[in-house]
Amino acid sequence: MAKKTTKRAKPRKSGGPLGSGREKLMASAMHLAATTRSLASLGLREVARHAGLNPNTFYRHFRDFDDLGLAVVEELSGELRKGLRERRLQPAAGGLRLSLDGDLANTLQLARSVIRESIALVLDSIAEHREAYVVGIREMHGTSPVLRKAMRKVLDDIANDMAEDVQGALRVDWLSPAEVQEISHLVIRQMTFFSLDYLEQPEQRDAIRAQAERFVLLLFLGALASRLAAASPAGLSGIRLNQSPPT
Amino acid sequence: MAKKTTKRAKPRKSGGPLGSGREKLMASAMHLAATTRSLASLGLREVARHAGLNPNTFYRHFRDFDDLGLAVVEELSGELRKGLRERRLQPAAGGLRLSLDGDLANTLQLARSVIRESIALVLDSIAEHREAYVVGIREMHGTSPVLRKAMRKVLDDIANDMAEDVQGALRVDWLSPAEVQEISHLVIRQMTFFSLDYLEQPEQRDAIRAQAERFVLLLFLGALASRLAAASPAGLSGIRLNQSPPT
Repeated sequence: MAKKTTKRAKPRKSGGPLGSGREKLMASAMHLAATTRSLASLGLREVARHAGLNPNTFYRHFRDFDDLGLAVVEELSGELRKGLRERRLQPAAGGLRLSLDGDLANTLQLARSVIRESIALVLDSIAEHREAYVVGIREMHGTSPVLRKAMRKVLDDIANDMAEDVQGALRVDWLSPAEVQEISHLVIRQMTFFSLDYLEQPEQRDAIRAQAERFVLLLFLGALASRLAAASPAGLSGIRLNQSPPT
Repeated sequence: MAKKTTKRAKPRKSGGPLGSGREKLMASAMHLAATTRSLASLGLREVARHAGLNPNTFYRHFRDFDDLGLAVVEELSGELRKGLRERRLQPAAGGLRLSLDGDLANTLQLARSVIRESIALVLDSIAEHREAYVVGIREMHGTSPVLRKAMRKVLDDIANDMAEDVQGALRVDWLSPAEVQEISHLVIRQMTFFSLDYLEQPEQRDAIRAQAERFVLLLFLGALASRLAAASPAGLSGIRLNQSPPT
């Protein structure tokens, strides 16, 4: 926020010194696009007017709307990635390990709490930056190849972070690196749907949060069961699955 | 295709008799929108010109582009739903049941083949109607509230069909109706990503198909393991999960 007052210095390219004009343009574009407009359909004058700026200032900060979109995506994804890693590494630093050398029931319990924390952070962050997220998720499949690629990269980056933490600090050593990668990418992609549900159905937030948590757990349990089935199908059928009959 | 030749009869509303003009407009709009344009940004004249029609004919068939988009969504989702149900019900009619009263290894094997068939149908259908799917998936999070709602409904309808078949004809009676519903919605949503990957990375199609199949299997196995863990955590930890150590 406390930026140098170089607004009049006319740095022509984005990536130059930031002024609050830049932030205002980003916020205005997200606000205008978050309703029923695409980023590509916004007019320069309209965004500048909404930001209370002279239209000429736009090009001091951005080359075009893709450039502005990229700046928003980078800013928010940087924040989100940092927050997510902290939430996962905190319990690890406190000694939490999700390896299976001990009590499985206990491990599951701990896993649930890490999942709960991480999901809560994602959903809180999304609720806090609602407009930018709606636009970002729209652009994930949208008309701009630049933003589409940027959004896919954000999802991949977040999934790779997750895989690294799960395998590394959290010591989930009962799945292979490939399995952890697989699960991480599935989780992050599905979270785009949970996020939008969360924004659009405020009265359902607790339920949506619980669905997301359970989704993550299902994948880890499924991967575990899959390993087991591959190693010993007979062993699997030895388990009394019918002990919880359908109601 | 063999429609009545009422093109000159000027039925003013969509939903009226179909002519090939209607189909041509739908195809042209999808073609123009599938590259880097949003459906909302298309011009009437441009679409009519591409279809080789007089622009005036547009309003004989559609109220606006939302109306045209809805027609495409309905046509394709109808086809896809019908095909999917047939693929799932065929093995059931042949006597296949996925209940767990017998050999679990065998059930898993059969489940895999139903999953493989269904996924193949979705991906084939998407490859065949590439442009319409790209536009449809874009509109799922897009700027038109009408199409957004229509696309969400398509996903929900397909998920409900899946749940009905899994629970009904395929006799997956070892999960509750709520669990089958849950899994079905997760699968259908995730398939939007697999579908786009499938279209965008033709050289990876076998791998993407396998990832999608495995995703479905992980969810069913995860739900099974989750039941087991809830019923008897001690029983779960009795399983030798470490028998497949990480490499």
